[in-house]
Formats: sequence, C-alpha cells, structure tokens
Amino acid sequence: MKEINAEEKYVLPLSLLRTRGNTSVVPLSWEKHILYLLDQRLLPQEETWLTYRSVKDVEQAIRDMVVRGAPAIGITAAFGMVLAAYGLKDKNEGLFVEKWLEKAAFMLQARPTAVNLKWAVERLEKLVREHYKMSPSNLTSILEKEAISIWTEDVKANLAIGFYGQDLLPETGGVLTHCNAGGLATGGYGTALGVIRAAASRGKEINVIAGETRPWLQGARLTAWELIRDDIAVTLIVDGAAGFLMQRGWINSVVVGADRIAANGDVANKIGTYAIAELARANNVPFYVAAPVSTIDPFIHSGDQIPIEERGPGEIITFAEKQIAARGVRVHNPVFDITPHHLVTAIITELGVLKEPYGPAIYACFS
Amino acid sequence: MKEINAEEKYVLPLSLLRTRGNTSVVPLSWEKHILYLLDQRLLPQEETWLTYRSVKDVEQAIRDMVVRGAPAIGITAAFGMVLAAYGLKDKNEGLFVEKWLEKAAFMLQARPTAVNLKWAVERLEKLVREHYKMSPSNLTSILEKEAISIWTEDVKANLAIGFYGQDLLPETGGVLTHCNAGGLATGGYGTALGVIRAAASRGKEINVIAGETRPWLQGARLTAWELIRDDIAVTLIVDGAAGFLMQRGWINSVVVGADRIAANGDVANKIGTYAIAELARANNVPFYVAAPVSTIDPFIHSGDQIPIEERGPGEIITFAEKQIAARGVRVHNPVFDITPHHLVTAIITELGVLKEPYGPAIYACFS
Repeated sequence: MKEINAEEKYVLPLSLLRTRGNTSVVPLSWEKHILYLLDQRLLPQEETWLTYRSVKDVEQAIRDMVVRGAPAIGITAAFGMVLAAYGLKDKNEGLFVEKWLEKAAFMLQARPTAVNLKWAVERLEKLVREHYKMSPSNLTSILEKEAISIWTEDVKANLAIGFYGQDLLPETGGVLTHCNAGGLATGGYGTALGVIRAAASRGKEINVIAGETRPWLQGARLTAWELIRDDIAVTLIVDGAAGFLMQRGWINSVVVGADRIAANGDVANKIGTYAIAELARANNVPFYVAAPVSTIDPFIHSGDQIPIEERGPGEIITFAEKQIAARGVRVHNPVFDITPHHLVTAIITELGVLKEPYGPAIYACFS
Repeated sequence: MKEINAEEKYVLPLSLLRTRGNTSVVPLSWEKHILYLLDQRLLPQEETWLTYRSVKDVEQAIRDMVVRGAPAIGITAAFGMVLAAYGLKDKNEGLFVEKWLEKAAFMLQARPTAVNLKWAVERLEKLVREHYKMSPSNLTSILEKEAISIWTEDVKANLAIGFYGQDLLPETGGVLTHCNAGGLATGGYGTALGVIRAAASRGKEINVIAGETRPWLQGARLTAWELIRDDIAVTLIVDGAAGFLMQRGWINSVVVGADRIAANGDVANKIGTYAIAELARANNVPFYVAAPVSTIDPFIHSGDQIPIEERGPGEIITFAEKQIAARGVRVHNPVFDITPHHLVTAIITELGVLKEPYGPAIYACFS
C-alpha cells in the first residue's frame, strides 16, 4: 500500500485519523494535482493505487467502481472536479466556468443512487457560480481547498458518528453489517464500521458478522479485510444467513451505512439491506443506519423517489471472467434497495442520533 | 448428457415423465447394478454422468454434493443401499443383515438436514428386518424393487404436487423460487419447479425469478439451466434482491422446496428461505412450500429440533479454487434455515394443499 506521508500538504484528513491512533484505511490520497485511488476492484488480493490526472478518468473510475461507497464517491468526485479546474486553468473566466459546469453535469451522471456525489459536486458548483469573475487559477485554488474540506469534514463526521453510535452497541455480542461502510467507503474511519471501530476502541467485545454482499462481495472482500487489519473480530456469512443467525440470537444489533436517505427517513442502501431490516424487526434486533448528513437528501420526500441503479448482468453471471450461471439466463441486477423508515431504529449522524419521527429530526439537521 | 433408453428395465420413473411429454431433467439413472449420477457440481458448464458401483462411493457423492436436493438424496441413498446389498449378496443371511445395517447407519450420516435420506434408508431397513431370514440374493431383489418404487413414487408425487400447486399460481406474473427444487433435486419434474412446470403447461405466463442461492449457486447454475431447457422464462437475481422486487410488485408468489418439515409445519430449507418468507409476509406475497410427504418428519415437533448442517468455509471464501474473501476471515456457513409455519401460506403435497393449522393437516397425511 502507498505510504501516506503525514507531512504532506493535503493530508489533513489522514493526520486527523492517525493522531487519534486510528489505523483505518483510506480509499484515496491527493497531492500535487494528482488523485490516487486504491483500486477496490482488486482488494483484498492486490493493493494497487491508481493515479488520476483528468476528470474524465475519475468519472470513469467512479462508474467502474475503482472507488465506491457514498461518501467516498462524493469526495472522489470533488477531487475529480478539481482536476477539471486544473485542466481549464488557462482558459479565460467565461470559458472556464462554462466548460467546468459542463464537466460537472457529466460527473453527476456517474452513479445515480448515492446522493453524496451530487451533494459534493453541487457544493463546488456553488463556489464556481459565486466566484465566476475570479481568475481560473484562483478559483481552482478555492475548489481544491473545498475538496479537501469535504474530505476532512467527512472524516470528522465519521469520528462523531462513531462517538454517538458506539453507545448503542452492546458491551459484547454479534453486530451484523452489510456491504462496506468502512474507511474504504468514506474519507476514512467509516460510518457503520466507524461505529464498530469506536465501540471496539472503548473495549466493547464486538464480533462483527459481515454479510458477503453479492454481487460485488464488498463484505467478503472489503469489510473483512478492513476489520482484520484493525484486529476486530469478523465472521463472514452469505447474505441469506442473516435471518438464521438472528433466530439463534447470535446477532444483537445491525449497523449499516446508506447511499441516500429521504426526508422521511427512508434509506437507500446496498441491495439486501431491506431484507436485513425486515428480519431485524421480526427478531427484535435493533437496526441502525450510520451516515453523515451529506447522505440525507432533504429534497426527496420518500424512498420511492430515490433512483435505484441497475448494473449489468456480468456481476452476477460471471466470476473472474468465468461463467457461473446457466447460459442465456436473463438477469436483473438492482444494486440498492429501500428500507422504509419504520424499520429503522435510529439514524446515527455526526449531529446526533435521529429517531422517529424522522421528518422533524431530519428537518432539524438542515436548520 | 447420457441418453436414457426408455426400453430399459429400470426406467419406469423416466417413462412416466416422458409419456406425459415432459422434458424435465433427472439427476440419476439405474441399470444393471450401476447407479449413474449427473454431477451437479459441474453443471451447467459440463454435463458429466458419474458411475457408482459401491455404497461407499455413493455415500461420498452425497456428502460432496454430486447429487443434492432432499428427495434426490433419498432416492440416491436407497440405490446406494441396493449397491450395498449387491456387495454383500454372497454372505450368509446373518452376516448380510448385520453388515447391511452397519452400512445403513453410515449412510444415515451423509447429510443431516434432509429427512428424505433417513426416510428412504429406513424404508429399506424395515424390509431387511422383516425378511432377515430370506436369502441375501432374494432380499437384494426386494431392496432393488423398493428403491425403484421410491424413485417412481417420488416422480408421481411431484406430478401430483404440480397438479395441486399450479392452481395457486397467478395466470401471469413473477414467481420467486430459491435454490433448486427441480428435476435435479428430485426423482424428476421437481417440487417447486414441478408446480411451475405444471402452471406453464397449463398456459400460465410465469416469469420465474430465481435467487442465485449462495454459496453453492443452485439457483444460478441449476434452476436457471433446467428452466431454460424447458423454455420457461427465468430471470436471475442475487438473493438480496428478493425484497426489492417484492416492494416493486414484481413477485406475485413464492414457491420453494423443503429439506424437512416438522409436525407443526415449520420448514427447513436452503439458507435464505426464511428471509424470503419474512419479506413475503411484509409485502403480502403468498409463500408456498412444495414437498412430498416423505419430506415431513412427523417425529419432530418443531423446527428448533431440526439439525442444521454447517458446511466448510471453502464454499464462501473461494470460487473455482480462487480466493475471494479477505485472508484469515472466520466463516459461518449454515446451509439451511427454519421458516416458522406462521409464515407459510400453504404446503403443497401429493396428497393435497395443507394450510394452517398445520398440526392436524400433517397428522392427517400420516393417518
């Protein structure tokens, strides 16, 4: 893995983590106009850092899932838009703004479900519109500082989510998580795994149950890898086994991340999350969602309105380029689902723990 | 695929299927003291028939999942015990019985959850005990006839299950199934897929939604393959997507098989079935279990008492001998779960459709 030098200019988010003695992996690094992404497609077998110098390549990396996880996508997209600004720095003011906004519109299409991408790009877009008369060079500096702030704030938010969330976990027991809502999915530390890290650092004896998370196996590949690195106990199961473990009393809590949360508290998250929520309800297991406020979309009333990304059949019918499934079978591959708010015990944010009724609680986060 | 000659002596179950114009695949064939098994580990990429001449090898084949599916395991075990008899034919009566019973006890250990194995072996055991004074050669003939009956009765049961069950499916719509409860899992035709085959042959426009069924991918590999062969529409999803499809109204019914049904109607079936049942309940989708009476264990009061097989970690952490998961991760791999009877809309058997209260309905099946 690329060694991160804490003395480097743009590693505030990293030093923020490291000074607290935290070993969480991070999915990206930024230095001297270059974005580095840890290729999550190859983990855990290979730790390869890819180098990005153009917005077009960053946009493709998000589509191809070199980086994934709602907050990490947002941060990556922000740095992508900084690279766009660098590429346009020699244009005049008018052309800079016009071209940059074109590229921003393109970036917004990279992946539809996670709202953080939209949130981050629009945050930079606001600056561009505010400072449209500024020299491209100065505006680029402003955008770069903003992207770093987005990253830093995300790490701070995760540390706060961990602080608030760890109280909710039992002193000892099994905690189920789904997909990867860890350091790799965020600026570092993680949302759901941030809560688990915080609980573990307080001495709670958590055994993390990681659902493997088909089709992309984020649980088997990423969550298991992160937690083993951090010496936190983790047991892998197939997604279908969550209910059985709950029936046996082996799961005391569920903590998952989110890709978008509607104003009413409905949660879009990795496909399979909704099933876990129904099982948790039926088995009296609390179901927690850990997410920064940047994952809440206050402009969307309910989960029905959240666009659900459908990916290609290859993720399901092949593995490592080898055919798994019967040839000729049709495939339906929605990669997120909606957990209705009534199944969510609490939403853990950096501003505190939200509970039903979620409408007013979420409204208060934006007031 | 091995061509099955309908003129052969021991293919009554096949001709039963074929004369009705049915093209269902079958998982086994028997001729002249040889058991043939279609290697389900290699499907759908390779259609390889393996040849078995000894009970020891058949027992290992069941453990290794060359053949799987509760009724198919039962039939295979019966033929395995016929091979045991052939191997002991030259012993004297006393030694034949003693040795045969030893091998039967060993066969009973092959896989713990599916009761059909126990049911089939005990059915032969009863004959051995009744006819313990008969010459080994004659007793072997009796056992062989009984194994063929077990197979034939299973096919007849499946055809009856299809007849009763198809009425429950909608004229058109999505029907979710899990794992493989098809021709491959039975003597032929299938239980859950038998219901679907019967509905399709009545002109119902069923779109089968097949859960891929981790870790062994019976849905992706076997169910999809069977249905494509029979020209029945099938769409593959990851197991975690069932809830999303139900939320969208794309699943009108669920039909699954069973590995063991307790006297109170609790159902042991492939891991992940219980999650589907909770989702079906929450989304007002009927949840049907299709199984022959041989899958009911009237000696077990409730699902808690059904032994749940735990298989090794390799099925989850590797694929095609390639490491998938993070190295060093612990694995929990229970391969069945229990669906409580209150989530089961109906149990479709060859004797008719059972509904709550299941206790008396099941009792009546054995009266």
